[in-house]
Amino acid sequence: MSEKLDQLKTILAEVTDLNRATAVLSWDQETYMPPGGVTARSEQLSTLSRLAHIRSTADEVGRLLSELEEETAALPFDSLEASVVRVTRRDYDNDRKLSPELISEIARAGSTGQPVWQKARREADFKLFAPALEKNVELNRRIADALGYKDRPYDALIDRYEPGMTTDELETIFAELKKAIVPLVADVARNADAVDVRVLYRGFEPAAQVKYALDVVTKLGYDLERGRQDISTHPFSTTFGPGDARITTRVSRDFFNECLFGSIHEAGHAMYSQGHGDDIDHTALWGGASPGVHESQSRLWENLVGRSRGFWKHFFPSLRSAFPEPLRDIDDEAFFKAVNKSYPSLIRVEADEVTYNLHIMLRFELENELLEDKLKVRDLPEAWNTRMKSYLGINVPNDREGVLQDVHWSYVSFGIFPGYTIGNLIGAQLMEKIRAAIPDLDAQIERGEFVALLRWLRKNVHVHGRKFTPNELLERATGKPLTPAPWIAYVREKYGALYGVKPVPR
Amino acid sequence: MSEKLDQLKTILAEVTDLNRATAVLSWDQETYMPPGGVTARSEQLSTLSRLAHIRSTADEVGRLLSELEEETAALPFDSLEASVVRVTRRDYDNDRKLSPELISEIARAGSTGQPVWQKARREADFKLFAPALEKNVELNRRIADALGYKDRPYDALIDRYEPGMTTDELETIFAELKKAIVPLVADVARNADAVDVRVLYRGFEPAAQVKYALDVVTKLGYDLERGRQDISTHPFSTTFGPGDARITTRVSRDFFNECLFGSIHEAGHAMYSQGHGDDIDHTALWGGASPGVHESQSRLWENLVGRSRGFWKHFFPSLRSAFPEPLRDIDDEAFFKAVNKSYPSLIRVEADEVTYNLHIMLRFELENELLEDKLKVRDLPEAWNTRMKSYLGINVPNDREGVLQDVHWSYVSFGIFPGYTIGNLIGAQLMEKIRAAIPDLDAQIERGEFVALLRWLRKNVHVHGRKFTPNELLERATGKPLTPAPWIAYVREKYGALYGVKPVPR
Repeated sequence: MSEKLDQLKTILAEVTDLNRATAVLSWDQETYMPPGGVTARSEQLSTLSRLAHIRSTADEVGRLLSELEEETAALPFDSLEASVVRVTRRDYDNDRKLSPELISEIARAGSTGQPVWQKARREADFKLFAPALEKNVELNRRIADALGYKDRPYDALIDRYEPGMTTDELETIFAELKKAIVPLVADVARNADAVDVRVLYRGFEPAAQVKYALDVVTKLGYDLERGRQDISTHPFSTTFGPGDARITTRVSRDFFNECLFGSIHEAGHAMYSQGHGDDIDHTALWGGASPGVHESQSRLWENLVGRSRGFWKHFFPSLRSAFPEPLRDIDDEAFFKAVNKSYPSLIRVEADEVTYNLHIMLRFELENELLEDKLKVRDLPEAWNTRMKSYLGINVPNDREGVLQDVHWSYVSFGIFPGYTIGNLIGAQLMEKIRAAIPDLDAQIERGEFVALLRWLRKNVHVHGRKFTPNELLERATGKPLTPAPWIAYVREKYGALYGVKPVPR
Repeated sequence: MSEKLDQLKTILAEVTDLNRATAVLSWDQETYMPPGGVTARSEQLSTLSRLAHIRSTADEVGRLLSELEEETAALPFDSLEASVVRVTRRDYDNDRKLSPELISEIARAGSTGQPVWQKARREADFKLFAPALEKNVELNRRIADALGYKDRPYDALIDRYEPGMTTDELETIFAELKKAIVPLVADVARNADAVDVRVLYRGFEPAAQVKYALDVVTKLGYDLERGRQDISTHPFSTTFGPGDARITTRVSRDFFNECLFGSIHEAGHAMYSQGHGDDIDHTALWGGASPGVHESQSRLWENLVGRSRGFWKHFFPSLRSAFPEPLRDIDDEAFFKAVNKSYPSLIRVEADEVTYNLHIMLRFELENELLEDKLKVRDLPEAWNTRMKSYLGINVPNDREGVLQDVHWSYVSFGIFPGYTIGNLIGAQLMEKIRAAIPDLDAQIERGEFVALLRWLRKNVHVHGRKFTPNELLERATGKPLTPAPWIAYVREKYGALYGVKPVPR
């Protein structure tokens, strides 16, 4: 067996190197590349992806997998060998099901769709974008058909990103969320004055913000020997191997949250990458279990840690030393409250913890209805606006701040959005378990100690990479599959207290 | 034909993309990569190089070339089609002559030899490095045998880097240089006091130096829409395509020359890359004609422009505005003299214009003698030290500042050094022709106008890429093959005047 496994690993290592080279080129494109580099860069990226795809879908891989499946059948589910074979098989089958023609049609639709979407958004005119979206809906249907599904076409799409997750399961979860959050949002909105947010807009020197943010994330456990922070238009994290997981941030003088919470969020992703086991390097197991599990790590650090009272008890004194003028008359409690302001807003990426999942639910519902032809593309803006009113109680003034706000629908990618909510829920579900394992967690955070927390995450999440599906991982770490209960309890308690809202019994 | 040429171009485009991706990864390694990234990065680089090598040496390429050679036989030598076929053939034959086993032996010898050399240099003990160098000499001989040569093994090695150049030709050139420079060096050394260099060490604020250098190179014509400047330990220039040719620089508070002249030098390389014709993109013609021709562009801008009197008449006022304190009692003439200080020194990379080529001649002679077994590796330090005394009149205090100073011999790469001298000579030879074509060049430089100069270089050098060999290019641009006469005349006149030495008749 070991010889065949070595052959498979040789191929996977080459694919890994090509994918990591692609990641370096993309990082450079977002951080330092001069404007003139665009054309050649897209050619390089397309060549590298093509070579990686050819290699990872070669007949040889299929042959090796069939032989190895027999030979690993008796091994424990979580053994390295059985897991490499199982996860490589999942990737291989998914990749082989999409024909090269369909893949290039998808790529073409994306690259033509994006400028069309940009123009439509600029002019706040959905009609300009509608034909491209119709094409994308059709392509999403063809992807679902090619991948195959039992009940609903969305099952095939969501399974690409969140293996093992089903549409029905998500619908149940969103129904519970909706029942809990919609009334909470309304309660919070009625007591909006309880939190004063003005301090965040007093002006914070940008270079000092970037330095402070980097200082905070290294204190959380982000290893700069194996990472670095740069500036980009949209913050992201990326990794080129076990020793190189980078983050970017952006900074605004006029709004404090962007830089610090952006950095903590991305460092949460990067610490996940820095925690993968050495034994899974160069195999299909290296990487995050799913976008949702990845988001659980970024959100856990950003919100459950970075927006906690203990965190600000520890960090506020050093923050005030760095920014004495804007913080002159503020204490840690006031600052803790300010960074936790909740209010219904139009734009997903600016939404707070309470309202965020409603933005996702809206998109999940609409993607499903489009896919199942229960909603026509031309009726999408109206459906969007109606639901924004119903879930968040706000009126959408135009398509730019409504249905056209996200880039995702300009390329062919239904099924990505739920990962954001899954991440929020997983983060809270893990945290419930962590609190049981580390009873004095809050006191540790208040002392600026994050080692035990990071060690727990390493052991139960990071080290496994892609070995387990999200639900397999959750079962092992918390004893339960994905459930929204811990997250609902968390926001009810936290925001109930912040806004003086009596917790609503479930 | 067009169909076959298209097939060849498709392969070359893929090779181009892989090589450009390699260049991006190397740039990142030298500029921003965290320490932990080393291992994974070398794996990525090795995979990309291997894939590029496999693709460019495929039998299919040989078959297409044979067919295309017949079909392009009647086309003009400098037509795009004939040139693509001719230059691809040259690369293909060279690449195919080295067996995969020899290539990996070379790679291994390089990666094991470099740390050995580092240790030997640190301890200033050549004996530690001698066994690795013996292996490298043997591998250089095997490369020469594999590539083939008529008269001397070095012919095969130099032809890899400077196509068409021969050992005999270089020996003739170095003999002329030696006859002219050795006495000039001695004359200048006797009048060393004529130039006061102390201003360069007065302390210049590093960030302001970097900013000033970038400002200067953009005024020379380096296009920042298609380039950028970063910091690295060793300055270099690299390019990832027609729209992205980058430079790096380094900066020292205590020595002015490093940053500005480093930036101008690298911008000279990068402007060459920025000037390649669009028609040769993605073919074997894209890139510099040879390391020597590349060096001619960097040296021309660094020395013939950047160290000219007119240049400092134009730039000194803005330099003094940027650094009023260290330049308080200095005028442009004194500064011009200071940056042109000449003195015999131990280290090649710090050598001035006059002495630099003697450092190269020394290495060229020693590489030849080692290769032809006229010199034993164990006797190399003595041979080095004797010649340093004879050519430059100085005593070498230890191996670190002598035979161990350059990284080149730690990997298998005899034949690279002459390119530095060839570059100096080509620069002067081109400049002689440019002065005839642009009679008021000095006045233009004094006014800060570099457009006509850059346009001439674009038209006669840059646009052609690798279409012509160095001598073919020189014949076309200047009517003559490589000759040291213009360079000798230039240094005699310039340094004769600077040091009050009467020009010696040839």
